Amino acid sequence: MNSKAAAIRILGIDPGLRSTGFGVIDKAGNALAYVASGCIKTDAAGSLPQRIKTILDGLVEIIATYRPQQAAVEIVFVNVNPQSTLLLGQARGAAIAALVTADLPVAEYTALQVKQAVVGHGKAAKEQVQAMVARLLKLPGVPGSDAADALACAIAHAHGGQGMGALATAGKRMRGGRLV
Amino acid sequence: MNSKAAAIRILGIDPGLRSTGFGVIDKAGNALAYVASGCIKTDAAGSLPQRIKTILDGLVEIIATYRPQQAAVEIVFVNVNPQSTLLLGQARGAAIAALVTADLPVAEYTALQVKQAVVGHGKAAKEQVQAMVARLLKLPGVPGSDAADALACAIAHAHGGQGMGALATAGKRMRGGRLV
Repeated sequence: MNSKAAAIRILGIDPGLRSTGFGVIDKAGNALAYVASGCIKTDAAGSLPQRIKTILDGLVEIIATYRPQQAAVEIVFVNVNPQSTLLLGQARGAAIAALVTADLPVAEYTALQVKQAVVGHGKAAKEQVQAMVARLLKLPGVPGSDAADALACAIAHAHGGQGMGALATAGKRMRGGRLV
Repeated sequence: MNSKAAAIRILGIDPGLRSTGFGVIDKAGNALAYVASGCIKTDAAGSLPQRIKTILDGLVEIIATYRPQQAAVEIVFVNVNPQSTLLLGQARGAAIAALVTADLPVAEYTALQVKQAVVGHGKAAKEQVQAMVARLLKLPGVPGSDAADALACAIAHAHGGQGMGALATAGKRMRGGRLV
């Protein structure tokens, strides 16, 4: 299979127990195209296994629908509340479980790496990420915060992240969110 | 399907990123019988998605081999190191993902509940849990620590834990690790 000429479809994930954002983009050469995005919300009144099942079922459906070839998952922050850190970790573990079960190669990016790739610096505010994602993918409006973070993670992967091999934009640099 | 008269097979899990313990027991009436136990070890040099895949593949194989009907997972402690808490959470989320993907009902027990059910008090040392598990299941030797914790979690579930419905030992109490 020589997929170098064809578009590569990337699924970006911003994991969370309440809401897991997802974003699907196509990369053909240096061009990026929006495919889909949204978020999987879990019932806060449900048990942890039930909420994990909701995340899994959602991701299984998204993977079956859009058939991505690669996945990129945001590396989550350690929270000040250890119990929240544990819950977030469990949601992220479940999301990665869904991806590896579908045999997708999974790359991981910190929020800093994602912001640098999309906005051009690591201190960008959430609104800047949302606006830049909308601009880079030529969206008619600004996506929701979780969906924007997931799309941003997919864009970071497309812009020469791990596992893109010969497709990586070697030697290119970001300035103001554009490859220069 | 009326399985009330037949034995119920329970899979207990003690989740961890380095080593995930598992233990399978059968409960028929008040009698418990040992089926299998062990642990799934991951390569510390591997990436997190690779290690999560190892845990998943291991659990998928265990479920296919022993065909449990119910699962019980130990509720993990928050670690002093937040990064360790996050890693442990991810391992636990992946383990629960494997269980709910196999449509197993998943009950959760704290280490305190497990120790109370198996040893009779919540302050039991690891060695006491191992010895009591060996005694309750009539094992010829003492199981390894992770396998013992997983078996203990399955025993706690068998002894009237969540989701055992009419099989729960209602009104019974534990004393010295025995139902009285």
